[in-house]
Amino acid sequence: IIHLSPPEILLGGFLGLSLLGAGLLKLPGMHHESLSWLSALFTATSAVTVTGLSVTPLSEFTLSGQAVVMILIQLGGLGFMTLAALSLVMLGQRLPMHQASLVREALNRSSSREIARLLKIITAFALTLELTGALLLAIDWVPIYGWRHGLWLSLFHSISAFNNAGFTLWPNSLLREATNPLVTSVISVLFMTGGIGFAVIGELRERRREYGWRVLLQPSRFSVQTRLVLEATVILNLLSLVVILALEWRNPGTLGGMANQGERVLAAAFTAVTPRTAGFSVIDTSAMTHASTLWTMALMFIGGGSGSTASGIKLTTFVVLLLTTRSFLRREASPSLHGRRIGDETVFKAIAVALTAILLIFTMLFALTITDPNHDFLTLAFEVVSAFGTVGLSRGLTPELSTPGQLIIIITMLLGRTGPLALGYLLATRKHHGINYARTELSIG
Amino acid sequence: IIHLSPPEILLGGFLGLSLLGAGLLKLPGMHHESLSWLSALFTATSAVTVTGLSVTPLSEFTLSGQAVVMILIQLGGLGFMTLAALSLVMLGQRLPMHQASLVREALNRSSSREIARLLKIITAFALTLELTGALLLAIDWVPIYGWRHGLWLSLFHSISAFNNAGFTLWPNSLLREATNPLVTSVISVLFMTGGIGFAVIGELRERRREYGWRVLLQPSRFSVQTRLVLEATVILNLLSLVVILALEWRNPGTLGGMANQGERVLAAAFTAVTPRTAGFSVIDTSAMTHASTLWTMALMFIGGGSGSTASGIKLTTFVVLLLTTRSFLRREASPSLHGRRIGDETVFKAIAVALTAILLIFTMLFALTITDPNHDFLTLAFEVVSAFGTVGLSRGLTPELSTPGQLIIIITMLLGRTGPLALGYLLATRKHHGINYARTELSIG
Ligand SMILES: [K+]
Ligand SMILES: [K+]
Repeated sequence: IIHLSPPEILLGGFLGLSLLGAGLLKLPGMHHESLSWLSALFTATSAVTVTGLSVTPLSEFTLSGQAVVMILIQLGGLGFMTLAALSLVMLGQRLPMHQASLVREALNRSSSREIARLLKIITAFALTLELTGALLLAIDWVPIYGWRHGLWLSLFHSISAFNNAGFTLWPNSLLREATNPLVTSVISVLFMTGGIGFAVIGELRERRREYGWRVLLQPSRFSVQTRLVLEATVILNLLSLVVILALEWRNPGTLGGMANQGERVLAAAFTAVTPRTAGFSVIDTSAMTHASTLWTMALMFIGGGSGSTASGIKLTTFVVLLLTTRSFLRREASPSLHGRRIGDETVFKAIAVALTAILLIFTMLFALTITDPNHDFLTLAFEVVSAFGTVGLSRGLTPELSTPGQLIIIITMLLGRTGPLALGYLLATRKHHGINYARTELSIG
Repeated sequence: IIHLSPPEILLGGFLGLSLLGAGLLKLPGMHHESLSWLSALFTATSAVTVTGLSVTPLSEFTLSGQAVVMILIQLGGLGFMTLAALSLVMLGQRLPMHQASLVREALNRSSSREIARLLKIITAFALTLELTGALLLAIDWVPIYGWRHGLWLSLFHSISAFNNAGFTLWPNSLLREATNPLVTSVISVLFMTGGIGFAVIGELRERRREYGWRVLLQPSRFSVQTRLVLEATVILNLLSLVVILALEWRNPGTLGGMANQGERVLAAAFTAVTPRTAGFSVIDTSAMTHASTLWTMALMFIGGGSGSTASGIKLTTFVVLLLTTRSFLRREASPSLHGRRIGDETVFKAIAVALTAILLIFTMLFALTITDPNHDFLTLAFEVVSAFGTVGLSRGLTPELSTPGQLIIIITMLLGRTGPLALGYLLATRKHHGINYARTELSIG
């Protein structure tokens, strides 16, 4: 283990956990019907990478099988997030959450005691949130399903939501809860907290302690990174709400089919925020218009905050790309935000992540059009982007995938989850050119 | 005119020519049936931007109308190419073809005599090629169609091919000539020469004069830029041939429906090279498999050489992006090619062009899914990428587009043609930051 680089540890860890999970799920007593190795591996990988795509409904697993899935989700989401951060701390690398001062502390002193403290803070925060979420969900579900089943449903869905896994124990995601404001708001708060990243949460906690709650109205007190993530989240979610309302309001297959305007707005709000990584749905994804399907794909590609349970290229990357493009068109030398010039290194990294993501998605989609040629193109493209962003929304393709198609999605989920983190590490440790070649400029465009 | 920047002149010129062309095409005596303003504008824009998408078949125009289209193609292709190069020369900017020494001469002395000489060389080269092409086509077509019509067909298609316009006077592009090796090879040579750019052609001519034809086997005698474009062209065309053969060989709608293996290989070769900007087709584009359709879209996005009649992000941009991605993954400080380190400025420009292109295509496709919601998504996406790359291949959508849909495609063709050139200029003249902000780095991925 000493000689592996963090990206290798990450990819190896995800793969190892997926294989272990598949082995566990194959055991007798884990499932009602027979379960193929491929289905077991698909389910385990989907859980470990917190994606939520599934070829086998979770209702076909026994309570033990479902518990295995839940533990895989917690290990894959919270567990790897913590480990990834720690492995970078231990290597003395600049890590995704380097601006949260609780981590800066750990970085500076870097003793095993400090590392243990960081680990404890993160875990305690996550578990508190998950338990609170479960209790709130239980208010609704225990009266309906009884103590035992109601509590189980609450715990499973709270953990699935906080880790942005998108798995539910019902066949149609959260369609049955579409009109239940308590459930949809608890689930949304959980996945938005998990998807924004500990760096932001940590800084929010600290500033709140220093200045009280009014700090939320004083954006200049936050670091550029945190401010960017918070502002981008708010703007993107509001914009998305407007887009979904405009494009789906009269669609009888989605919002148009709902009883009243309040329900439509509630469902639209949930649909607007879920694609950036959560993957729960309260409407029929395959019935959405082409336009909002494309919009949803863009959100799935963007993803959430760095160092969070989200995948995708991440909010920071997306904003840096937009600012860079704007700076080109304005003929400025480099992009800036809130009175800070964004460094070339950051611009370079953002571009590397986006390019690699686009190449990966294109390659996997191309492969999928060969292995599964008879499906609608949009459905194939949607599935690949969903797997890359470990979102889990689907237009219904997953159970119909061919065997090589399932393997393609498994690989896409693994690379989508490891990719940005690993790439971030590779970029942080770039060598300087050994051979000093003469420089050349080429004509572009 | 003195106070306009080259990008403004370019976009203004394309737009002005399109409007002028539309006005001419609306005149009585230009068309057999009635012609709407929108159809006239669409046809004129498609000709000026050398795209080749059409809402009205050219057979509905009279000989005069077809002649107007041919002149618009020549002005839009050859004319603007020359002007764009000259306007940059006159501004003393580094221009796309700065490595061809005939241009270096013009650059260094920059007298109006030298500029006139450059203009003469380019025009003479283009006209010679177009006339030779027309005469070769006439060998085949005069015996069939008689002198008058046969010569007209030859001239029109030769000019359409050299300028990569993709317009034909027949309803199904070149499907009727699919099995005619003389026609397909003359057309291919014409569009490949036009699409590789004068910089490369100029350097080839000069090296050939110095060292004779054997210089073609001595790649190190060429500049990095020329070598890159030539090698990328060869590799991409061969790879594309293999892909098309593999994916379409047994497709009864395309290659699979042909009489013998020779015809299949001939048609595959043409289909492999046409998407990078020519836009002629010898098979039914809408019958291709999803996989080769996606492959074709990638080629349309890439396009041809800089400073050529091609659009798209250009070969240089594409190769620089690939090399940059490879350098990330190898943890090198910067990409290199043939023993030369590629400068940061070049990497930055390549990324700017690619990002702007992706944003443009996404925005236009999103708009098109709203204006034309009832069409297949792949068909819509294909049309937008074809318009952006001014390729002109279509899965049959063009004549069925709604009015706002047609306007979207018109705008996409104009921006696709102007975009990379204009962006190249904007990037070449970036200001240095006036306000010296403090630098910040953000966590990415
Ligand atoms: K998910
Ligand atoms: K064309």
